[in-house]
Amino acid sequence: MTRMRILVWNEGVHEANNHPADIGQYYPDGMHGAIAAGLRRLLPDAEVATATLADPEHGLTTEVLDRTDVLLWWGHAAHDQVDDAVVERVKDRVLAGMGLLPLHSAHFSKIFRTLLGTTCSLAWRNEGEQELVWTVKPSHPIAHGIPHPLVIPQQEMYGELFDIPDPDDLIFISSFAGGEVFRSGVTFTRGKGKIFYFSPGDQEYPVYNQPEIQQVLANGVRWAMPEAEERTPPTVSNPPRQWLI
Amino acid sequence: MTRMRILVWNEGVHEANNHPADIGQYYPDGMHGAIAAGLRRLLPDAEVATATLADPEHGLTTEVLDRTDVLLWWGHAAHDQVDDAVVERVKDRVLAGMGLLPLHSAHFSKIFRTLLGTTCSLAWRNEGEQELVWTVKPSHPIAHGIPHPLVIPQQEMYGELFDIPDPDDLIFISSFAGGEVFRSGVTFTRGKGKIFYFSPGDQEYPVYNQPEIQQVLANGVRWAMPEAEERTPPTVSNPPRQWLI
Amino acid sequence: MTRMRILVWNEGVHEANNHPADIGQYYPDGMHGAIAAGLRRLLPDAEVATATLADPEHGLTTEVLDRTDVLLWWGHAAHDQVDDAVVERVKDRVLAGMGLLPLHSAHFSKIFRTLLGTTCSLAWRNEGEQELVWTVKPSHPIAHGIPHPLVIPQQEMYGELFDIPDPDDLIFISSFAGGEVFRSGVTFTRGKGKIFYFSPGDQEYPVYNQPEIQQVLANGVRWAMPEAEERTPPTVSNPPRQWLI
Amino acid sequence: MTRMRILVWNEGVHEANNHPADIGQYYPDGMHGAIAAGLRRLLPDAEVATATLADPEHGLTTEVLDRTDVLLWWGHAAHDQVDDAVVERVKDRVLAGMGLLPLHSAHFSKIFRTLLGTTCSLAWRNEGEQELVWTVKPSHPIAHGIPHPLVIPQQEMYGELFDIPDPDDLIFISSFAGGEVFRSGVTFTRGKGKIFYFSPGDQEYPVYNQPEIQQVLANGVRWAMPEAEERTPPTVSNPPRQWLI
Repeated sequence: MTRMRILVWNEGVHEANNHPADIGQYYPDGMHGAIAAGLRRLLPDAEVATATLADPEHGLTTEVLDRTDVLLWWGHAAHDQVDDAVVERVKDRVLAGMGLLPLHSAHFSKIFRTLLGTTCSLAWRNEGEQELVWTVKPSHPIAHGIPHPLVIPQQEMYGELFDIPDPDDLIFISSFAGGEVFRSGVTFTRGKGKIFYFSPGDQEYPVYNQPEIQQVLANGVRWAMPEAEERTPPTVSNPPRQWLI
Repeated sequence: MTRMRILVWNEGVHEANNHPADIGQYYPDGMHGAIAAGLRRLLPDAEVATATLADPEHGLTTEVLDRTDVLLWWGHAAHDQVDDAVVERVKDRVLAGMGLLPLHSAHFSKIFRTLLGTTCSLAWRNEGEQELVWTVKPSHPIAHGIPHPLVIPQQEMYGELFDIPDPDDLIFISSFAGGEVFRSGVTFTRGKGKIFYFSPGDQEYPVYNQPEIQQVLANGVRWAMPEAEERTPPTVSNPPRQWLI
Repeated sequence: MTRMRILVWNEGVHEANNHPADIGQYYPDGMHGAIAAGLRRLLPDAEVATATLADPEHGLTTEVLDRTDVLLWWGHAAHDQVDDAVVERVKDRVLAGMGLLPLHSAHFSKIFRTLLGTTCSLAWRNEGEQELVWTVKPSHPIAHGIPHPLVIPQQEMYGELFDIPDPDDLIFISSFAGGEVFRSGVTFTRGKGKIFYFSPGDQEYPVYNQPEIQQVLANGVRWAMPEAEERTPPTVSNPPRQWLI
Repeated sequence: MTRMRILVWNEGVHEANNHPADIGQYYPDGMHGAIAAGLRRLLPDAEVATATLADPEHGLTTEVLDRTDVLLWWGHAAHDQVDDAVVERVKDRVLAGMGLLPLHSAHFSKIFRTLLGTTCSLAWRNEGEQELVWTVKPSHPIAHGIPHPLVIPQQEMYGELFDIPDPDDLIFISSFAGGEVFRSGVTFTRGKGKIFYFSPGDQEYPVYNQPEIQQVLANGVRWAMPEAEERTPPTVSNPPRQWLI
């Protein structure tokens, strides 16, 4: 098995603005730092790097993407500031086989919406409600070792209708104290790339510090890891007749 | 049941250019004319209109789309000439519930690619090969009354890999004389809208004059017809806690 | 459109035993009576009949099934008393195209388990909790006209893990006051037959008297209605070479 | 990673009867021997054992299944001689997490039909036609390293309609020289267990000696390997209210 090369991307705007004011207490290295730390703990053989919106080309240059197997993406306040050319570059890489894990409010990121084709809209309410994450596909490797339910003491509510295409796999469904439900762990395939969207995790609650949440992300990264070395998107061909002759 | 309002859109470039030279013989009213005639025969209660690229706003004004339940789309030589604003308008309508039937080379249309998120690339070869269309989901209403296999004497070969997301329903698989296979009848859901892609049909072969092909299209239109009168795409909401109290 | 012929089957054991004691108050004609009344109201052109376990051959003779397009099935206390030969007969009919709506505790019926191949087990708790039924596939005809959420004041809790194969369509997800979630409206295809499982409805709560629940069942019956007149299951064939020659 | 324990089961009737007469030439150790040899070559760290119908309890005792992670199953002439109690035992193990690879004519095995719930019927013709196996889901680990198409010089034709439920993943579609198509590589989940059906392979043609076919089977075994140590099927539970309080 080749070494996995993981990149955790975070817009980093909440952290830069100290918004909320106590974000530096539970995420001293930013959300990307907490996510990367969890991955390093659970996938000790992997290379784990981070990048943010403020980096040149958002830290998503061709060179960086060339050595990335799986990309995690957290965005919220600055979706519109992500350069369209970078989004196209990332999309091309996903179609060529790079794994992608859009997280939480990245449901509204340009990269997620362009890969899915829908509005990706949902219902939300930020009152720090308890979230219960229930496994509905226990055979899936992403569900391995995850408690049923996984309990998140406080989290922003995300509720249906979540406007996404039918996922390949529905792994987790969440309920919230207020009674709403959400398809919180879903997979998609686009081109040669595997996508795992996972909704828990927010700038106001220390969700990414929970070991079970870190386990879900590590499972997701392993699952989204492409098998092939070669990374080209599917393309048109015009073959001659060569079979059945 | 309300009256179905169907719009058959064709770029109309092959017809305008007499390319191929004999297109006017088997499609004297254009491909859109042949498709519309088939639908009028099989869905006598429906309103069937046509539009082409050359019409103002490609014949796809807000007013026209407001009174369209299901849109069929044929394009090939002029995908790039379709105005992006019109594509956005059509996409918005699909997400709001309008049915969409992209046909044959519309696999590369802007509207199909933006709704699916993949390259929609495929293998092709234009040697007038026999195509056999096999039904693999006989319970689906689109398969009702269609022979197994449906035989097309001459058709352009479209072959796998067809770079699309996993469809909601795989209804037809085609084989070609040269040995290739193709997922030739597939459905998707995007937002509230239903999409049926069907690959047989080409500017060089009189496929749309075949009664069985017309039956597939009529079945597809009926299936893609939205149930709801109201046509708004899914949208974000921020509901208060109101349940479980 | 041919006239739909619907059969509502109920084991009828709770009703016969007055268990619970007040079942005759909210279901004076049994659960099958309430379900049939709702279908007659919403599908006035359909024939709606009923049958119970106590009938000869459970009311599911070859003759009866020969004139049934869609069968609804409610069972709970007497799954084991359903004759295996009758189950085989019903299964054969489903594979041949008859629609099937297993309801609530019919998750454990012989017919559902033999068609699905899994244990169909789940979590349950009978404390009369509020159930909220959320639509997650608004384009599906079964969701048409159903409130989001549909509120059931009191209902037995059914929770995940619901051990079923991945459904063709996931239409409804329920939450319960206790925090559990359940895939409460799911479709499957087996052979030529369409299956819609819907979990709300119980012998202790007057759920089948709710107009919205009746609407879901009427939508489900319409969706499961087979298109073809001919009713034979798929079968083996040994065709000669006859194409591509 | 724990060591994979693989069991290749073959009814062994064709081999015992020298039917066809030259089966001993291309399969000197039986089809199970050829399959096991391929797995040992490609999965050198795995334990690979074999068993046949003639063994006590068909070689599928509780003890054997207790130490089996993935079971491959080849059967054709003697499906009816497989003991129902053994089938139930195997089914229980699949639901508890054991992987299962039904091969070729095992489409009609008791274990496959009871897990799928359909007739599993198909069209067939034994004239030694060329089969082309096309990959339609290149992101799937089972497709990794497999040529597109994989060419089988001579093979029995299996054609649609293949009466199976919609698979979780459609990975391969085959075409045959006679023009038929077949969903030749499909996955299912039942309970906690993963199932991969793969149709190429027959007693009359040395298909299991092809390195690419062996690669597909090795990929399939790796994919079907359960993650969890614990092996119990999903079961009913009756939890108290314990959340949201």
